[in-house]
Amino acid sequence: MGGSEIERLIQLLGRLPGLGPRSARRVALHLLKKRESLMRPLGTALHDAALAIKACSVCGNLDTVDPCGICTDTRRDPGLLCVVEDVDDLWAMERGRIFNGRYHVLGGTLSALDGVGPDELNLASLVRRVDAGGLREVIVATGATVDGQTTAHYIADRLAGRGVEVTRIAHGVPVGGELDWLDDGTLATALKARRAL
Amino acid sequence: MGGSEIERLIQLLGRLPGLGPRSARRVALHLLKKRESLMRPLGTALHDAALAIKACSVCGNLDTVDPCGICTDTRRDPGLLCVVEDVDDLWAMERGRIFNGRYHVLGGTLSALDGVGPDELNLASLVRRVDAGGLREVIVATGATVDGQTTAHYIADRLAGRGVEVTRIAHGVPVGGELDWLDDGTLATALKARRAL
Repeated sequence: MGGSEIERLIQLLGRLPGLGPRSARRVALHLLKKRESLMRPLGTALHDAALAIKACSVCGNLDTVDPCGICTDTRRDPGLLCVVEDVDDLWAMERGRIFNGRYHVLGGTLSALDGVGPDELNLASLVRRVDAGGLREVIVATGATVDGQTTAHYIADRLAGRGVEVTRIAHGVPVGGELDWLDDGTLATALKARRAL
Repeated sequence: MGGSEIERLIQLLGRLPGLGPRSARRVALHLLKKRESLMRPLGTALHDAALAIKACSVCGNLDTVDPCGICTDTRRDPGLLCVVEDVDDLWAMERGRIFNGRYHVLGGTLSALDGVGPDELNLASLVRRVDAGGLREVIVATGATVDGQTTAHYIADRLAGRGVEVTRIAHGVPVGGELDWLDDGTLATALKARRAL
């Protein structure tokens, strides 16, 4: 394979999500062909980001400052808190520009199968934020998976009686989606959650 | 997205083959979670490989030394030369441990569609290697694609009358397939069943 440096690079690339041994080799070769325009800049970007990016001690978002830019943004509604599983879910909400409150990143979902209990997630800090006051609504935006639903119900239980309304984002037919393409679970949920027109 | 460092990282990751914007975000987040075990080592590996790895001036293989380890390996048959499209094809041959000669990496195939002519490939250096003498057989192992076949016939024409036998790995390679995708058995069969062009 020509040098342990290549093998080491391929081995590390193969540990990235979505890349197997073959695609790791393809990526390595592509990088070696674009040494100045891609390989070195990527190496530098990795070091820069590893050094500069930290988790926000308030909400768990990733940013170069702590607290993060969203937590310190005074134009955002301080009474609204959206609870998400991970930072990529926060990114998805932000891309949509549909939410003007702040966030709380759990760092995953409760999972009996993977042995993830409440202590492994940022749940104690969520309760502390609610008890600190100033919030009127906590919107639970965990995924529509079994673990996501379990986590949502657990959060509703933990926050009950603490003077804050706990809501859940709706589940149903995706906008633009055709009924014929949907799984039975989504259809059943959409039917159950029907509202008056 | 929390910091231009993340955006820059995602933008560069999205330029890797096989990664789109969404998978680039997923990889970036995975890296930021495995900062010490994966992110920094990968950054270092990229810099190390960019610095250490060079193209062999004889055959075009990638290695830390020039000429490469294969070209200087005296246990290899000096009379056998295998012509491949790219370094990943060379890697595929080497993984199979089915060939004990040396290589010549073309750097692609002739392609009327993509405007790749003979001058864009390492063809002049191939002719020079043949004219330098010592070779008894050139095995053309370009892919079984239209461009790969065209390139093989072009090479046979260029090397005709230069005192070397030009052979082609056998069909047994699925039409439209790439060498790098094949299992070792198919590669070995194709190599053994090579015929005069």
